[in-house]
Order: sequence, then C-alpha cells, then structure tokens
Amino acid sequence: MSSRTNARFEDLLVLAHDLADRSRAVIRPYFRKRLDVADKGGPKGFDPVTKADQAAERAITRLIRERAPDHGVIGEEYGAQRPDAAYQWVVDPIDGTRSFITGVPMWGTLIGLLHEGEPVLGVMDQPFTGERFWSGKRGSHLQEAGGRARRIRTRACPRVKDAVLMTTSPDLLEPGAETEAFLRVKKDARMTRFGGDCYAYCMLAAGFVDVVVEAGLKSYDIAALIPIVERAGGRMTTWDGRPATEGGRIVAVGDPALHEKVMKLLNR
Amino acid sequence: MSSRTNARFEDLLVLAHDLADRSRAVIRPYFRKRLDVADKGGPKGFDPVTKADQAAERAITRLIRERAPDHGVIGEEYGAQRPDAAYQWVVDPIDGTRSFITGVPMWGTLIGLLHEGEPVLGVMDQPFTGERFWSGKRGSHLQEAGGRARRIRTRACPRVKDAVLMTTSPDLLEPGAETEAFLRVKKDARMTRFGGDCYAYCMLAAGFVDVVVEAGLKSYDIAALIPIVERAGGRMTTWDGRPATEGGRIVAVGDPALHEKVMKLLNR
Repeated sequence: MSSRTNARFEDLLVLAHDLADRSRAVIRPYFRKRLDVADKGGPKGFDPVTKADQAAERAITRLIRERAPDHGVIGEEYGAQRPDAAYQWVVDPIDGTRSFITGVPMWGTLIGLLHEGEPVLGVMDQPFTGERFWSGKRGSHLQEAGGRARRIRTRACPRVKDAVLMTTSPDLLEPGAETEAFLRVKKDARMTRFGGDCYAYCMLAAGFVDVVVEAGLKSYDIAALIPIVERAGGRMTTWDGRPATEGGRIVAVGDPALHEKVMKLLNR
Repeated sequence: MSSRTNARFEDLLVLAHDLADRSRAVIRPYFRKRLDVADKGGPKGFDPVTKADQAAERAITRLIRERAPDHGVIGEEYGAQRPDAAYQWVVDPIDGTRSFITGVPMWGTLIGLLHEGEPVLGVMDQPFTGERFWSGKRGSHLQEAGGRARRIRTRACPRVKDAVLMTTSPDLLEPGAETEAFLRVKKDARMTRFGGDCYAYCMLAAGFVDVVVEAGLKSYDIAALIPIVERAGGRMTTWDGRPATEGGRIVAVGDPALHEKVMKLLNR
C-alpha cells in the first residue's frame, strides 16, 4: 500500500483486522499470568503487562512495515515512526492495563488509522473474550466469540436524566474543576458505572451506555474509538468541542442530541 | 439426595456444576439484548436482566427439586423455599445487574450451598466469557473457555501498601463513617479498582487482587464466594469479624496476614 495515492478502504480494513489477529495471538498468553512478589523486585522482574504490550506493539509494527511500508505508526511503547506519512496507525496494545493486571477482562487492543490527521477506521479487539468492535466504511460492527459480525448502533437518549454515564475511574480526574464538572453530569444522570477504559466507548457504540466523560487521555487511547462511536451514530469531542483525535478531556455521547446538554454541564 | 444424612461432597459438586450449566444456557441469550426506549414504558416493557434473572432462578430451582428434593433454596427473585432444610442453596443468577445492563462482562451467576448455615461449596459462572470459578473439597479452581480446569490460589501480600484494593462502586457505601472507613484503606493501598461485583472476589481468589471491601451485601451476593476465597487461601468476614455468610459489610483478603491490618483501618 502507498500513502501517495489514497488506499482503498477495504484494503486498510483487511490490514487492520490482520493487525488485530496478530496482536491477539501475542497478548493472550500473558493475561492472568501471575506476578508473584518474588518477581517484582528490580527492573529485571517479570511484568506481564509490559511484556505483552511491547511484544504486541513490535508484532503490529512489523506487519505494518511489511504490508504498508509508507505508513507511519504512533505507539504507546515505542513512540512515533515516519511521523510525516499521510497514513498514521495509532496503536495501544493494552488499553486498560489496570484491568489487565487485576485479571478482569475490561481491557482491549486499540488499532486506529488516521489520514492527514482524520480518523479513517478503528478496531477494538479483546483477546480473552474473543470480541472485536470495528468501524466499517459506513457503520460500526461487533463480532463476539463464535458469533457472526453484526451492525451496532448507539441508542436514542435525548435527556441527561435518562442517561447511563460511564468513566474509567473517578481517580483519573484532577481534583477541583475537572472532578466538579464530572460530578455535575453524574448528579443529573440516571446511573454511573466505573471501570470502563475502551469498553465504555464500545458499549456506547453498541447502545448500552449513553455518555462517557474522561480526562487525561492520550491520542492512542482514543483515536481508534472515534470512528467506532461516530459511525454507530454517536458524537465525540473534547470538553471544549474540538476534535477528540489528540486526546485530553473527552466526552462521547450516543445520541447527538445529548452533546450540547452534557457540554453545558461540563462547562458551567 | 437426602438432607437427613450428609450427602457426598462429590455429588453436591456435580449438582452445582449442573445448575451452573443450566443457568448459563438460560441467561446467555439475554445478554446484550437491546432495551430500547420504546420498550421501557410501563410494567409490561421488556427488561432483559429481570427476565434472565427470573428464568434462570426458575430453572435452577426446578433442577434442585428434581435432584435434591429435601434441599432448601434461597434466591434473589423468589425468596426462600424449605427454609428448615439442613442444606440450603443460595442463588443469585445475575450478580452485577448494572454491568449486565451496560453490556460489560463483569457479572456472574452465584450458586452457593450451606449446610446447617456453614458454606459447603460455591460456583461463580460467567455465561458470556465461558469462565467458571468454584471451590472443591480442598482447593479452588478456574476453568476458562476452551481451557482446562486449574487450581487457583491467593497471593502473598502481607502489607496494605502493596495491596490492590477492589470494590464495586464507591456509591454503594453510605456517606459518612462507612465511606470514610473505605477511604482509609484506599489511601494506604497501592491501587484501587472499581466495578467488580463477584469478579472482585474471584480475582482475589486467583491471586490478582489483595483486598475487597464492600457494604450492603445480601447473603445471596456472598455465600457462594466464601468457599471460593477461603479454599484458595484467603479470608473473608464482616467488618466486625463475624462470618460473612449473612452479608452486610464484607472484607476479603487474599493473604490472611492482611486481615487484621485492614480491620484496624476499617474500625479505627
């Protein structure tokens, strides 16, 4: 594939799935490997999440170099490669490292693609449960283990008081204004759930969650999730209404009619 | 099986697994069924979690009546049957209903058995991921989808400052003394994770979490988890040191050496 001409979307999507297949195989054996106290001491200790993260990012990068040598890669572990390329893969092999190390399946592999800075497609793969969420050219899709791929859509929820709100942890918000802004949304929402990471956005895309409010995100935490949310019918920006691509403070809504209402609460 | 003589442990465990197989088949189709706004209005609306909960409890109760007609059943949905029987099955088909309705796989089916009020065995089954945790006569076990059953054990962690703490939600603690007690443990712990329900106790049994602190639990939220935690090497009581069987305020530790230290923080 070349970045000088626009690649065909279908070819890019095939590559994205191949990258997710590869990383799934690399990561899976590390999940629920015990890190015993004896292993902790010192830089040579065995740290399953770091090992899995690095091994998967290497495998993903290698496959991109083979199949799309003109594309760039922005990874969590190894930084940026070919930062001037038109196509940039944005990769976080394990989004939700705290879930990973506590053994719960609320983490996932994020593989996103930007073209001239705009999100083209995204994949969220869960190696343990065998789930995969991705954005197609028009819609978003979910395939569960042993099941067939199906279209997912956000649900209608025009009022904050009916909304299910999700965020990874209240501890990830700065004390003061950031926490207070979140608490204003939480107070008006019907229910709040913690512990999401990438799952929160995928559940919003699938119509089970209405609002996600987070802060302190990096580009690789979010780039893959934008097309999944938006092509399922939702909307995603920073708290001040800019594109979510760069990360920072992020708000996602399933029903676009909620966006302005949640923004008002965040910025009161 | 008769409650007049002590049943063989192996027979009880076979029945427990059969109950979990039955409930898994009943519950699975309801997970991630969309509850759209149009379905919500009125008592006749379709509520997947209540329907799944009730259908599974009926299926479990029916199988207990067939196979162990002298045993009692304590369920979340239908209350107590044969409350005077020596053997009592304590059942919560969907522990973690809030996770269930938000589409995330952090919930499970709890099937516990008490004999004269003492926990005999417990099963936690996850119909979506295909995981099952249970207590055998001596040890505790985990079988993952497509894998073989393996022994699980809690990990050594004698100091609160090294401990990973887990609780379902800070919102489930009463404001005031209860929340402050939790925050004292959280402040000293290395890391806190939210969103656990039954998974938190199973991850403690498997050696990935060191402390679980919760409040407001019912007997059916906890009875099945006690033998899973204790036979994996952990300890579980109420915050005032009584047996956890009745529910209420619960503390579980993976390393028994942590118990007194966490109790001191909770009751300072």
